[in-house]
Amino acid sequence: MGISALTVGPEGVKVPGLAVLQAAGVINAVDENLRRLDAYAARAAGQGAVILVSPELFATGYAPALVAGSDGEGIRGELAGIARRHGIALVGSSVDATSSARHISASLFDRQGAELTRYRKSHLFGPEEQSVFSPGDDLPELVPLHGLTVALGICYDIEFPEFARSAAQRGADALLIPTAVPATGDVGGLPPELTYNADRISTLLVPARALENGVYIAYANHTTPDFTGLSCIAGPYGTFLGLAGHEEELLFADVHQTDVVRARELNTYMTCRRPELFT
Amino acid sequence: MGISALTVGPEGVKVPGLAVLQAAGVINAVDENLRRLDAYAARAAGQGAVILVSPELFATGYAPALVAGSDGEGIRGELAGIARRHGIALVGSSVDATSSARHISASLFDRQGAELTRYRKSHLFGPEEQSVFSPGDDLPELVPLHGLTVALGICYDIEFPEFARSAAQRGADALLIPTAVPATGDVGGLPPELTYNADRISTLLVPARALENGVYIAYANHTTPDFTGLSCIAGPYGTFLGLAGHEEELLFADVHQTDVVRARELNTYMTCRRPELFT
Repeated sequence: MGISALTVGPEGVKVPGLAVLQAAGVINAVDENLRRLDAYAARAAGQGAVILVSPELFATGYAPALVAGSDGEGIRGELAGIARRHGIALVGSSVDATSSARHISASLFDRQGAELTRYRKSHLFGPEEQSVFSPGDDLPELVPLHGLTVALGICYDIEFPEFARSAAQRGADALLIPTAVPATGDVGGLPPELTYNADRISTLLVPARALENGVYIAYANHTTPDFTGLSCIAGPYGTFLGLAGHEEELLFADVHQTDVVRARELNTYMTCRRPELFT
Repeated sequence: MGISALTVGPEGVKVPGLAVLQAAGVINAVDENLRRLDAYAARAAGQGAVILVSPELFATGYAPALVAGSDGEGIRGELAGIARRHGIALVGSSVDATSSARHISASLFDRQGAELTRYRKSHLFGPEEQSVFSPGDDLPELVPLHGLTVALGICYDIEFPEFARSAAQRGADALLIPTAVPATGDVGGLPPELTYNADRISTLLVPARALENGVYIAYANHTTPDFTGLSCIAGPYGTFLGLAGHEEELLFADVHQTDVVRARELNTYMTCRRPELFT
């Protein structure tokens, strides 16, 4: 089983089942952002996708201090409506506030709009996020979905190998990751090999996580110029099943648990690891 | 301080200080392999390198079952002589046999030929290795060398994020990794995005390890057609300071602890990690 075509194209070509939205969430323009997400969900579902992953805090725009007080519960209600309306599972991100703390969260809604799981970002990125949000202290739950076991993560989480390893080791086949990676350009002012560029999170770290754990990773980012774009769907062999450019784009890929199984038979990282050495 | 030029070139250009040898170790042709290593060490030292990293089991050739009974102690004596003769620190790999077990090991010799540390490969790769060698159960020691703190690792070790993380967390600035990666070609017979190719260990996993830990990695492999080549020196921003092709080659790079410090100020992975979540 897998997340595969619900429909076939005009020539019997398989239509991909996992979609990633790369788009700019406009700051505090919640209604406009949700309208655009609704239209993208319609398009993704129309092209046969059964899951759509959207960027971190897309509904409010990614601006931690400006959106920390946003109505997360209301937004989740709208996200559930989008999923239900188009009959597509949806990963959407919102602020999760309790009486004592605010978190950046991501929720997975099924095609009926039921919230199957909500995850609170556990690695907060940078001083602004860290000043207005609290980190989550729970690992993402594992959720069966269309024959795959999926887990959520958010942005900075996936840059830590421990995070993806833990999810894969617990049984995840696919990690669904809303993100918001600020564009850095080339940092350093030194020769090219001594510069840092945040583009490398998409081009290097995400496919490395996929390869070293034999998992799919769907990584949904905002667009340039403020963010790096380069959303991607990485496969369990460390390849890109889809890699976006810098503008708005929907990526699609056909993903199957059998490929996770084959990848892990070939690269036996999960069975050859020696956790006892590193405690 | 750093591993930098001992000499300057004709126009005052800095001469690099870290060298990686990519070359084919001929199976059980120990004398010939050591003669070639001696010549490469002379060349590396002549070009200003202060450390040379050579491939896994280069002196015997990489063929686990065929070389498991080789005279590791004798080879280490020869490796020490090469280091002393050319006044260059040398990482060389040999069989380390005790009364009860045989290990694949790597040794770091200083420029006087003293063996500063020996490390036993802790992640053995594939059925042949696993049938004739025993895994080491100790993490690599940290060794101060020319202003850097270095640690050894061997081949499959570096594919596990836990290994590099552990060394970096304990204080390593540079990981010196003899390797022998058998060429796989494209495995799978499926569309390109569903194939595995061991080239990706060099092109994806090694620079990802460097970036996610803010360390240098010197990765010394054998040549094609039996092995993947693609030896490299990856820097703490996830770039290649040097990347070999498929033939015999000496790579050079200038490496400095100040770049490790700068990289870790920019990418605060080591301080933002949350090990308490993953125990």
